[in-house]
Amino acid sequence: MGAAFDRDICVNAVSQRPGGGGEFSAELSGGWIVGGGVNGGYLLATLGNAVRSTVPAKPDPFTISAYYLSASVPGPATITTRILRDGGSVATVAAELVQDGTARITALATYGDLAALPEEHRTTATPPDLPPREQCVPNTMAPEQVRTMAPMMERFEMLFHPDHIGWAVGEPSGRGVISAWFRLEDGREPDPLSLLTVVDLLPPVTFDLGRPGWAPTLELTVHVRALPAPGWLQVRHATRNVAGGMFEEDCEVWDSAGRLVAQSRQLARLPR
Amino acid sequence: MGAAFDRDICVNAVSQRPGGGGEFSAELSGGWIVGGGVNGGYLLATLGNAVRSTVPAKPDPFTISAYYLSASVPGPATITTRILRDGGSVATVAAELVQDGTARITALATYGDLAALPEEHRTTATPPDLPPREQCVPNTMAPEQVRTMAPMMERFEMLFHPDHIGWAVGEPSGRGVISAWFRLEDGREPDPLSLLTVVDLLPPVTFDLGRPGWAPTLELTVHVRALPAPGWLQVRHATRNVAGGMFEEDCEVWDSAGRLVAQSRQLARLPR
Repeated sequence: MGAAFDRDICVNAVSQRPGGGGEFSAELSGGWIVGGGVNGGYLLATLGNAVRSTVPAKPDPFTISAYYLSASVPGPATITTRILRDGGSVATVAAELVQDGTARITALATYGDLAALPEEHRTTATPPDLPPREQCVPNTMAPEQVRTMAPMMERFEMLFHPDHIGWAVGEPSGRGVISAWFRLEDGREPDPLSLLTVVDLLPPVTFDLGRPGWAPTLELTVHVRALPAPGWLQVRHATRNVAGGMFEEDCEVWDSAGRLVAQSRQLARLPR
Repeated sequence: MGAAFDRDICVNAVSQRPGGGGEFSAELSGGWIVGGGVNGGYLLATLGNAVRSTVPAKPDPFTISAYYLSASVPGPATITTRILRDGGSVATVAAELVQDGTARITALATYGDLAALPEEHRTTATPPDLPPREQCVPNTMAPEQVRTMAPMMERFEMLFHPDHIGWAVGEPSGRGVISAWFRLEDGREPDPLSLLTVVDLLPPVTFDLGRPGWAPTLELTVHVRALPAPGWLQVRHATRNVAGGMFEEDCEVWDSAGRLVAQSRQLARLPR
């Protein structure tokens, strides 16, 4: 596939472990920089891609939990994976991303085959109440200085709910909610791996609380609950608890067919 | 301390790792059996206790993610811990619980000192709307056969919201919500470690959806957000998405001072 996203999350097998798992090389792209760092969702999809290669018969992340240890930088990285259990319909794998001998991310994941799951579902969560796309505020309207600071904004289209964008003009709503329409560039359709990135792409919800700035993630867990249909996604995140200098951020991703395809929660530090 | 909970989660250091971490022995208690298995929250607190001993200057779980690999049984277990990063105000540790050479649980955790965090908080989540305790339905009213099947019910008092207990008489509400007052036996006051257990003690929320039975946890992540005040806790959990034979279950624990002290989410399999 020729989409930038697929090139960016590419991993190459270097060696295999006798017990299962192996070592992969990756080249972290400068295209996913935001502020001073590399986007944590992009890093998670790269790591998730190595896990996928480790257990190819179970290609989809049912659940993945990443703990961020130090700030990744664009350039070479090594990912090691280790199969902890592979039996029945799921496999659990540990993975670690290292740069220059320094651990950046450590993760656990349980993978399976989303296409093999029963179709039956019962969702009481409700999709974001987004106005039609032409009434939303596109990320391409961001001032030049914002786009320079966040090159990753060139990697996707994000059309914000007009009521959730007050922070961009100094008028945060104070509710702690941001939602938007979303699609990757290059017509790259959503899949379970790209959802690992999508859950971490909205500006930190603290922007809407009048606390702009970088909010480093301590831990991010994503559940991918269904194969996403092609087309635009709807993404919403919110916090219910800012305390002790940290906040939890819950994100939901809905596909064009109205299915809740991913749910995530992260614990992040408040911007200073 | 003489409380059963503290005896049950006790771990003994066996050896230390040069780079940090070590090996601990534990004796998993038969007192936390529910149905065919040992309660996952009790196991998490035992594992969390070994992590606490590994980084004593950072005694509290800010976030811990456990992946359940196979069913634990009462009896001896070995827990190994490995410090992945220890610097600044937090430490990240990997931990594994093994019985008879078989991995039961693997976990990642970031620990710190809750007492050292700023007091400022802003919580928009709301506590469960529980009636006074004397109007709630105590777990001691459960039929003898239920209590025989779930010895762990002797370990605590749980007073259910009368509107959330219909499933006990064959009339589940269908909403997917259960809430209750809670305290451990022996006057054992809540602390961050016991909260790791409390988030997993309510009957699976699927009981309230008319799907009773054992709901094995694939993954459970807990954020402990504040030191709990002494006294009764209020606990509520709910699901927003049952799909693909699995459901997410979000739990919140509120202390007697009205603080949201723990938030958890798990991905579990639907009962068969």
